[in-house]
Amino acid sequence: MLTRPAIKLTHRGATLLLAAAVEAAEAMGVPQCIAVVDDGCNLMGFIRMDGSRVLSVESATRKAMTAATTGRPTGGISPDKALLLAEATSGKMTNLLGGLPLIIDGHIVGGIGVGSGTSEQDLQVAQAAVAAFLKRMDEGQHS
Amino acid sequence: MLTRPAIKLTHRGATLLLAAAVEAAEAMGVPQCIAVVDDGCNLMGFIRMDGSRVLSVESATRKAMTAATTGRPTGGISPDKALLLAEATSGKMTNLLGGLPLIIDGHIVGGIGVGSGTSEQDLQVAQAAVAAFLKRMDEGQHS
Amino acid sequence: MLTRPAIKLTHRGATLLLAAAVEAAEAMGVPQCIAVVDDGCNLMGFIRMDGSRVLSVESATRKAMTAATTGRPTGGISPDKALLLAEATSGKMTNLLGGLPLIIDGHIVGGIGVGSGTSEQDLQVAQAAVAAFLKRMDEGQHS
Amino acid sequence: MLTRPAIKLTHRGATLLLAAAVEAAEAMGVPQCIAVVDDGCNLMGFIRMDGSRVLSVESATRKAMTAATTGRPTGGISPDKALLLAEATSGKMTNLLGGLPLIIDGHIVGGIGVGSGTSEQDLQVAQAAVAAFLKRMDEGQHS
Repeated sequence: MLTRPAIKLTHRGATLLLAAAVEAAEAMGVPQCIAVVDDGCNLMGFIRMDGSRVLSVESATRKAMTAATTGRPTGGISPDKALLLAEATSGKMTNLLGGLPLIIDGHIVGGIGVGSGTSEQDLQVAQAAVAAFLKRMDEGQHS
Repeated sequence: MLTRPAIKLTHRGATLLLAAAVEAAEAMGVPQCIAVVDDGCNLMGFIRMDGSRVLSVESATRKAMTAATTGRPTGGISPDKALLLAEATSGKMTNLLGGLPLIIDGHIVGGIGVGSGTSEQDLQVAQAAVAAFLKRMDEGQHS
Repeated sequence: MLTRPAIKLTHRGATLLLAAAVEAAEAMGVPQCIAVVDDGCNLMGFIRMDGSRVLSVESATRKAMTAATTGRPTGGISPDKALLLAEATSGKMTNLLGGLPLIIDGHIVGGIGVGSGTSEQDLQVAQAAVAAFLKRMDEGQHS
Repeated sequence: MLTRPAIKLTHRGATLLLAAAVEAAEAMGVPQCIAVVDDGCNLMGFIRMDGSRVLSVESATRKAMTAATTGRPTGGISPDKALLLAEATSGKMTNLLGGLPLIIDGHIVGGIGVGSGTSEQDLQVAQAAVAAFLKRMDEGQHS
């Protein structure tokens, strides 16, 4: 097999993730930076909410990249290895909480990264966005 | 005066610009990368449409930055100076068509950059987004 | 709301901050690098005093950026998270002491960062500069 | 001779250059970014005037660096070689007008770079600053 079938996130999917994350962040009263990347770690969508941290543009994107490349939530690496990985990837691999992969039918289709709040707030917003995405996927299959 | 009053683009404004640009690009049948930055050239919003060029993530963002920093549409610099400016800003100042500033009450509040189509298509999508933004601003003031 | 009102630091404000910081550093007998950035973390003013450390050009600037993006004095992050944040922002977020935000009427208008002395000296110079700025603001409002 | 005497620009000298440049730019009605570097191309002073271009932070600094490293005004290199030099220095050598060296008793002590206006305006502001500096030097020697 020289090629293989795959599943890709669409820009509608990225837009849904961003909107759901913004809604969750607003409900929480914590402005956030939210990044969505595809399986190639390339940016698909981004929103920086009013009052969120400018420097979180970069960290939120890297959380999304880390989740997309590993297929796992960010934050699970041992502290020593985390810094080595960060150094070895020019900072792109991060162990900060707030990055989640998007996995559909066993395919990693991308990742979402949220940053500007506490670690816990960042993670909650990412979880709300992924939950909204999977719910919509599920509704689509049954409709 | 140690401080001065200013106007800032909100993330709702950035979201409206992205949605209007996506709509215009879909109507045109040409997938695009669309970036919105604030007056400090920091990313506020981004969408990469399905089928658009991955490397346009960067060029679209730089078009937005160039328009925001100059307060003018991109593309008006003489060819010789354009390359010098690109080099002197590590590629951030670009003379590619498709970047437009967003100017409200005389304040540059940001810029939009569109890339992945022809120069003409990129510009048209940016123009459609700015027109939709200004129309909504106008409606808001009269409602 | 597609836009929102804001307050910006002027270059006169940045110049006052630099002059007050230089004066405080001279009184202390410790040469310093002093950077002032706006709310978008873009450089507004800078002075490297005779005898201060050349490599502090970068660290002082990053202290200013960190204070401006967080709205808080630098140095308050837990050691573990501090390194992760530094990595995830290519070193721009720093936990070194000596960065202070400039907050006017609830708006973060920028930050000042001081580096080349001990942590305590850096912080004192930044504090003196912010105090001088706020005093002048106060005088302006009552004159 | 293992060492040699030199002359260095002080931060008071850099401050005078910045103030003179700001005054000239204000008289001209054109906001500018102004950078001063020492003979090692390291930043000594900087001011970004209200309304000047954010991306000129970088280009103004590089004009100062280019003038300091060559000992000549920027802009005198042939177009072809200029781009090669820009590429070979990661954009630090620039042929944009607006950079002038500061030469005292045959020693290059640094450079000033001005950017955000037209090439001609940038150069005029740099010239005004250097003239003010040399005038003050001259007054000092005769007082």
